[in-house]
Amino acid sequence: MPQPSRDALNAWIDANRDASLERLFAVLRFPSIGTDPAHARDTRACADWLVAELAAMGFAARVVPTGGQPMVLAHHPGDGSDGPHLLYYGHYDVQPADPIELWETPPFEPRLVEGPHGDRIVARGAVDDKGQLTTFLEAFRAWIATTGSLPCPVTVFLEGEEESGSPSLEPFLEAHAEELRADVCVVSDTGMWDIATPALTTRLRGLVYLQLDLEGPSRDLHSGMYGGAVLNPLNTLARLIAELHDDEGRVAVPGFYDAVRDLDTATRQQWRSLGFDGAAFVADVGLNAERGEPGWSTLERTWGRPTLDLNGLWGGYSGDGSKTVIPSIAHAKLSCRLVADQQPDAVIDAIQDFVAERAPADAKLTWHVFGAEPAMSVPAEQPFAQAASRALEHVFGKPALMIGSGGSIPAVAAIKRHLGCDSVLMGFGLADDRVHSPNEKFERRCFENGIRAHTALLAEVTTLAR
Amino acid sequence: MPQPSRDALNAWIDANRDASLERLFAVLRFPSIGTDPAHARDTRACADWLVAELAAMGFAARVVPTGGQPMVLAHHPGDGSDGPHLLYYGHYDVQPADPIELWETPPFEPRLVEGPHGDRIVARGAVDDKGQLTTFLEAFRAWIATTGSLPCPVTVFLEGEEESGSPSLEPFLEAHAEELRADVCVVSDTGMWDIATPALTTRLRGLVYLQLDLEGPSRDLHSGMYGGAVLNPLNTLARLIAELHDDEGRVAVPGFYDAVRDLDTATRQQWRSLGFDGAAFVADVGLNAERGEPGWSTLERTWGRPTLDLNGLWGGYSGDGSKTVIPSIAHAKLSCRLVADQQPDAVIDAIQDFVAERAPADAKLTWHVFGAEPAMSVPAEQPFAQAASRALEHVFGKPALMIGSGGSIPAVAAIKRHLGCDSVLMGFGLADDRVHSPNEKFERRCFENGIRAHTALLAEVTTLAR
Repeated sequence: MPQPSRDALNAWIDANRDASLERLFAVLRFPSIGTDPAHARDTRACADWLVAELAAMGFAARVVPTGGQPMVLAHHPGDGSDGPHLLYYGHYDVQPADPIELWETPPFEPRLVEGPHGDRIVARGAVDDKGQLTTFLEAFRAWIATTGSLPCPVTVFLEGEEESGSPSLEPFLEAHAEELRADVCVVSDTGMWDIATPALTTRLRGLVYLQLDLEGPSRDLHSGMYGGAVLNPLNTLARLIAELHDDEGRVAVPGFYDAVRDLDTATRQQWRSLGFDGAAFVADVGLNAERGEPGWSTLERTWGRPTLDLNGLWGGYSGDGSKTVIPSIAHAKLSCRLVADQQPDAVIDAIQDFVAERAPADAKLTWHVFGAEPAMSVPAEQPFAQAASRALEHVFGKPALMIGSGGSIPAVAAIKRHLGCDSVLMGFGLADDRVHSPNEKFERRCFENGIRAHTALLAEVTTLAR
Repeated sequence: MPQPSRDALNAWIDANRDASLERLFAVLRFPSIGTDPAHARDTRACADWLVAELAAMGFAARVVPTGGQPMVLAHHPGDGSDGPHLLYYGHYDVQPADPIELWETPPFEPRLVEGPHGDRIVARGAVDDKGQLTTFLEAFRAWIATTGSLPCPVTVFLEGEEESGSPSLEPFLEAHAEELRADVCVVSDTGMWDIATPALTTRLRGLVYLQLDLEGPSRDLHSGMYGGAVLNPLNTLARLIAELHDDEGRVAVPGFYDAVRDLDTATRQQWRSLGFDGAAFVADVGLNAERGEPGWSTLERTWGRPTLDLNGLWGGYSGDGSKTVIPSIAHAKLSCRLVADQQPDAVIDAIQDFVAERAPADAKLTWHVFGAEPAMSVPAEQPFAQAASRALEHVFGKPALMIGSGGSIPAVAAIKRHLGCDSVLMGFGLADDRVHSPNEKFERRCFENGIRAHTALLAEVTTLAR
């Protein structure tokens, strides 16, 4: 079957831009906070809505229950021509919206706000990942509207637990490996270099996420009667956390860096050639110092080096005024971003051993593991990556940069492991999109270029032999 | 006028023990959490109830408004005989009840629970200080019921801000210095040595209470995009807090110990002679190690040495599951117990300077001060202390021990400063009363011996010349 002309596809995209935006707004209105049991019904409703949209486009679509949030799974047979089988991955869950008071408008009431690059779409999940998964859904819609079908077999699978470590992903992939088998996985959950410069992400960091509960006294105590004479869980937890880094900013846990594959000179040179402005990067968030592991630039620290950061800390009295209490228990949530070839379980063990050795004998330590995924890299030279690169150049008029990402997409490693196929990470976010923060946004221009790029990718990949 | 016989007083106390208990239960039912604006009405209602009780006993009683919680102020002229003028101090506010889920019964529904020493009164404020202030109120009631009056002029003043640093106390004492003038102040907000052994507290520690807000990035950030490359307020706050102590457990803030008056040998020897069991003290709260500033025993650390303890710590995500956020801000509440001759303002300055020097230049530090009172000592040889000692020996059949306390009663120092009179600290709490903790209790036997001791004190002091 002949391919539709680029003009015909772009004409449809231009003619339907408001309808495409309204469909994105519809999915953004679901408060699908997958990690929060209070929003389980909202998350399920979001999955059902996506299934209905895919079915309306001619996909055989269904919700697949898991131990946690449901998976959206849909198949399109294509037009019968012998193209490769494409698997598209995205996630419809979003981060919690707190601190809610910092949102200028309600997080689940999407709206357009005028910005320096034109209209921006503001809502929780605008870019991560509802806006981005909608770019390929709308590309399918454009192609089907223009040709009546898709140029090759397409499977879409959208999860609802990406923001909480994807606990149900592995069992799902294992149980549906045959049904999900494809030649490549296409993922849109990453960023561009800037609004005018497309990028393919060739490396992602891994993630381990831990919670530590430290219990000292069997009950809360009066700081006058007991202070200075017994284990204070807050002081003790603060010390243990402080000891996780040395004075220079390195992670002090023995063995933490052992398996780290150093950045090769070529990569460091290519990254330097990007002209990343670290001072502007920190100034954008109100800080004036680049800091972190010594010997590396800010770009290298975020793309190429492992980290250990606290994500939460709580214990004792946090109300108004004063309470002179020594609390019985204190808590911390912490996460590490991993690089090749760090093994998540080894890192978890090393951290737990390090803390256990330094904790007082009468402190009770309880650990919870909320995520454990290794780092992932995508060979830039593989044909689908090259096809994506050509597709991006068609849309943006300049070649795509090969970049890293500090973030983690557990699905990419899991898909390689269980389905044996590589992923192409073609994303349209920008550095200032406030991912995971109040007032998260997605540039409308990036949204529409994303739709164009995905139609161009369909055109490119169908020229590849299986 | 002849004094009532000890037998007549004790007979009244025995005959009215259930009525006395019910009056204590009534005051315990007010959730008078003075530090919490949400309970302002409850706190006011508790003050009104006490005024009504004092008025019913023949006191000229009233509520005196302040900038914060109201003061209860009441005067009884006595029977006209030329005894000393006694001032009684107590506080009707209580600590917050949280963590509420650890209470076996609701904190403001007082009840009797069978214990090893017989019935115990369980409720927030049971011993601190509603149960203790009720011991002298019931002693007045016994004396008045038996003789028709009191043996000397008595002024009672009860505050509602003791648990939050007594911010309105100084202005109140200054404004009412003439009206409050007395020969001695009697305070029941301290403890016994054990249930059979009475004690007079001759030293109290001072208190400074601070909150630190540490702001880093101008907004919450994604730990993948920014982690390891920017200031993390949680990691930074943990480090700054950890640095407040050295590895041995001393406070590391320069100058912190400069003004500390060392314990004299006589005091250390008298305390050693008490045979305090430090191992049992920590075992009682589920710990197996005595720890703190090196070179001092647990008793010396809690009675005679200054401390720095965290009372609260919070920031970032504390919900279920995971959120990979670098929060914009982190908070800590911390307090120091002070000993003579430490000056609260000097200690506050030293801590703030220490933290400021070590904080990153782009961390914004905001401090809140919730209390600043120096340590206090009461000369054991002064005649009213001797009278109290004799009164206690009458009731318990053994001499009162002269002890210290790790706690702080800002009123004692302020009363000395503004009214020029010493205080007698005659209290009936026990070490295991769970002061400031869930399931706070007061032994019924201690409550009733307290009533007896206060009637005996009235008999003793009236034998003293003014």
